[in-house]
Amino acid sequence: VKEYSVDLKNLLGRVVPKDRILYKPEDLICYSYDACTVVDRKLPDIIVVPQKVEEIVETIKLASKHNIPVIPRGLGSGCTGGAIPVYGGIILSLEKYNKILAINQEEMTAVVESGVVTEDIKEEVNKYGLFYPPDPSSSKFSTIGGNVAESAGGLRGLKYGTTKEYVIGLEFIDGKGDVYRTGYLNSAENMYPDLTNILIRSEGTLGIITKIALRLLKLRENITTFFVCVKDLSNAAQIIGELRRLETLPSVLEIIDKTTIDAILTYKKFPVPAESRAFLLIEYDMRIDEKNLKKIFSANEALMVKKADNESEREYLWSIRKAISPSLVTIAPDKFNEDIVVPVSRLKEMLEFLEFLSNKYKLKILSYGHAGDGNLHVNIMINKKNKEDLEKVEKALDEIFDRTIELGGSLSGEHGIGLAKSPFLIKEFTFKELSISKKLKEYFDPYGIINPGKVLPEKLN
Amino acid sequence: VKEYSVDLKNLLGRVVPKDRILYKPEDLICYSYDACTVVDRKLPDIIVVPQKVEEIVETIKLASKHNIPVIPRGLGSGCTGGAIPVYGGIILSLEKYNKILAINQEEMTAVVESGVVTEDIKEEVNKYGLFYPPDPSSSKFSTIGGNVAESAGGLRGLKYGTTKEYVIGLEFIDGKGDVYRTGYLNSAENMYPDLTNILIRSEGTLGIITKIALRLLKLRENITTFFVCVKDLSNAAQIIGELRRLETLPSVLEIIDKTTIDAILTYKKFPVPAESRAFLLIEYDMRIDEKNLKKIFSANEALMVKKADNESEREYLWSIRKAISPSLVTIAPDKFNEDIVVPVSRLKEMLEFLEFLSNKYKLKILSYGHAGDGNLHVNIMINKKNKEDLEKVEKALDEIFDRTIELGGSLSGEHGIGLAKSPFLIKEFTFKELSISKKLKEYFDPYGIINPGKVLPEKLN
Repeated sequence: VKEYSVDLKNLLGRVVPKDRILYKPEDLICYSYDACTVVDRKLPDIIVVPQKVEEIVETIKLASKHNIPVIPRGLGSGCTGGAIPVYGGIILSLEKYNKILAINQEEMTAVVESGVVTEDIKEEVNKYGLFYPPDPSSSKFSTIGGNVAESAGGLRGLKYGTTKEYVIGLEFIDGKGDVYRTGYLNSAENMYPDLTNILIRSEGTLGIITKIALRLLKLRENITTFFVCVKDLSNAAQIIGELRRLETLPSVLEIIDKTTIDAILTYKKFPVPAESRAFLLIEYDMRIDEKNLKKIFSANEALMVKKADNESEREYLWSIRKAISPSLVTIAPDKFNEDIVVPVSRLKEMLEFLEFLSNKYKLKILSYGHAGDGNLHVNIMINKKNKEDLEKVEKALDEIFDRTIELGGSLSGEHGIGLAKSPFLIKEFTFKELSISKKLKEYFDPYGIINPGKVLPEKLN
Repeated sequence: VKEYSVDLKNLLGRVVPKDRILYKPEDLICYSYDACTVVDRKLPDIIVVPQKVEEIVETIKLASKHNIPVIPRGLGSGCTGGAIPVYGGIILSLEKYNKILAINQEEMTAVVESGVVTEDIKEEVNKYGLFYPPDPSSSKFSTIGGNVAESAGGLRGLKYGTTKEYVIGLEFIDGKGDVYRTGYLNSAENMYPDLTNILIRSEGTLGIITKIALRLLKLRENITTFFVCVKDLSNAAQIIGELRRLETLPSVLEIIDKTTIDAILTYKKFPVPAESRAFLLIEYDMRIDEKNLKKIFSANEALMVKKADNESEREYLWSIRKAISPSLVTIAPDKFNEDIVVPVSRLKEMLEFLEFLSNKYKLKILSYGHAGDGNLHVNIMINKKNKEDLEKVEKALDEIFDRTIELGGSLSGEHGIGLAKSPFLIKEFTFKELSISKKLKEYFDPYGIINPGKVLPEKLN
């Protein structure tokens, strides 16, 4: 923790009520990490919990005057260390900046503060017969602000796209304390350039997102869910391809590999045919031609097809998918959780390559993800105390990243770059491409105080 | 036409074959205007018709060395003067840079050169069972590059979004002659910041877009079309609202006002109930619940509902909508064609306000547009030689713009800012908002040679 020439506690006490300023050692520890498992913790100097835009503006103005880092934080569910105060400073925790400000049933829009938990938005708009499609697995414990900052994807990406597709306007505060309103929150809907899109996926490095306007859809009512076990990855890939070409797209199309299913089985019992090596969770939210679907399944060596006939059966099928995360800990104490994306047509190759690597390095590699849009979660399970394992992971990760790019994919499907992937960015982008990012950063954050050390590799700074 | 210290013809002849360099007076005239009716023509100094990326790169390098403007041009169908060489210079006409480079049936993507006519893409991908949804009215005579540069909307906006939603990658050349590849055309799919989105709607001011990667959908097969005449604008607004809240969205939802229908009737005969004052063209491209639709129509005083039962009846209904543009000339020799967007819930108020203005100024104001997303085409028909009319138009336009912003709308629904609307930009945006545009412009075009004089108001430059 750095020494500042000013007394942060007193300074911030002038702009934020004292009961929302935290600085005790136990507080500092609580805000020293997020859900990223591969970067070190760092203590902030102080935590501010704002409830008004003005408090955020004044905090940033003070911070910029005294050159103190300000790190925006939702609920710390990020997977790439984006909320870690690498250079100390002020954690701006938006956990209490969490009001749903407006729901417009006729326009099918909502305006919310950035600290609202995504699931709370989903539930609230449901009451109005409306539907917010993006569905990151973290939606129960991540904030909408974090979702926007990372352009979070999720299970419904294939049919409905990601968070990005539903954000129609923002309010944000830049590194000088200037307040911007874009899109729906500006009288001018079509900003040039599209500032809304520049802020989406900026991972809290260009400014603090404070309000978000969302586009909503009509609530869906005809849900059909299938769990399908097939003989091998080729069958799964074939089914995925065929479903993507039907008139009605599945709202969910998840693939789970054999190693992952084995892990789930140690945690939760359910019957799967012994010889099946790939698994699909498929959901539709519109009326469908069931007969045609079953034809597709059986033409591609489906060994078992389970259809949910009511809500409790549906919950049962979903509980298999949801058991993945908790079951992982039964495999090994530590996981390296990578999030890659490849063109859907190369998904099979990628999964086969992961099986190959698993054998080559004798590592437990569990893969599953949103097959419909080529997004894979790759989990390497080890014990970090085993130094040899750590070295193998490093080699395997390097091979995974190289292969991903070779297949025309990307290193960050939906978890962002943050701290953890920043050193790898140079593999994907040229200096020229990153320099525009740097220019934008300098424009919005001339003092370099907003979430420093994230996204852009150090050597560019 | 400006004098340059260099012989443009010889200079460009070194990098582009001579038969694709035009400079005769009649050529210069042909490239001195676009479809914008409210700005003056300007002659370029020369026209280059490239067929290779290298030719574009070298042309820009020469132009930047000698400080000569370069104006990208597709087929000149733009409605805001974006392709007019206000400061002379080189017209870079992409009319022969028009190959469809790849269609990937499995990935459902296409890669095209920017000079391809949009309709050609639509027809070609149809052969593969694929569907490119954006459908600007100009699709038969506008290029995909122009569509991307303006983020063209179109008839299918409500259900499928605009051009922006289908562009997944770009190749473009900046004002220094540097080539960028983004998104799908880069190995890295998730660029930070999203350069693809920064270039979309940049109206040819940040660089020359040369290649475009498009996301496609499965071709639709179940088309149902309705033409509905209702008693008044309130009925129309009510139907629009209800259709927007159904599970299946219409792929087309067009509104046409009474004055426009009267104009069409002078050009093309078809029966409409005399007392109807608002008209809807509605199309679905998925199976629908027809009974429910008809219930909605009759509950809202539909005086006539025509449904197309086959392709020729469908063409007949569409011919009404398509007769609008040609019929306008029968009203008056000149038109001021404005393109505004308001929240759908305020559409009725806007249309009523236009009727009010029409009476107040004794002007023929014809309005029609994409009701589903609040996009209205407002046409004021006059004789430009009548000075009094011109003055009235000016006043009416000012009132239209003010009212649009008051209703939470925007001055440029889908035609961009270009030359024509640049002076009005200051009504919508603050200096702070526009200064980021200026920074981006300076970054990509440090010599200020790429389409100068467009979008950003002069006083900012």
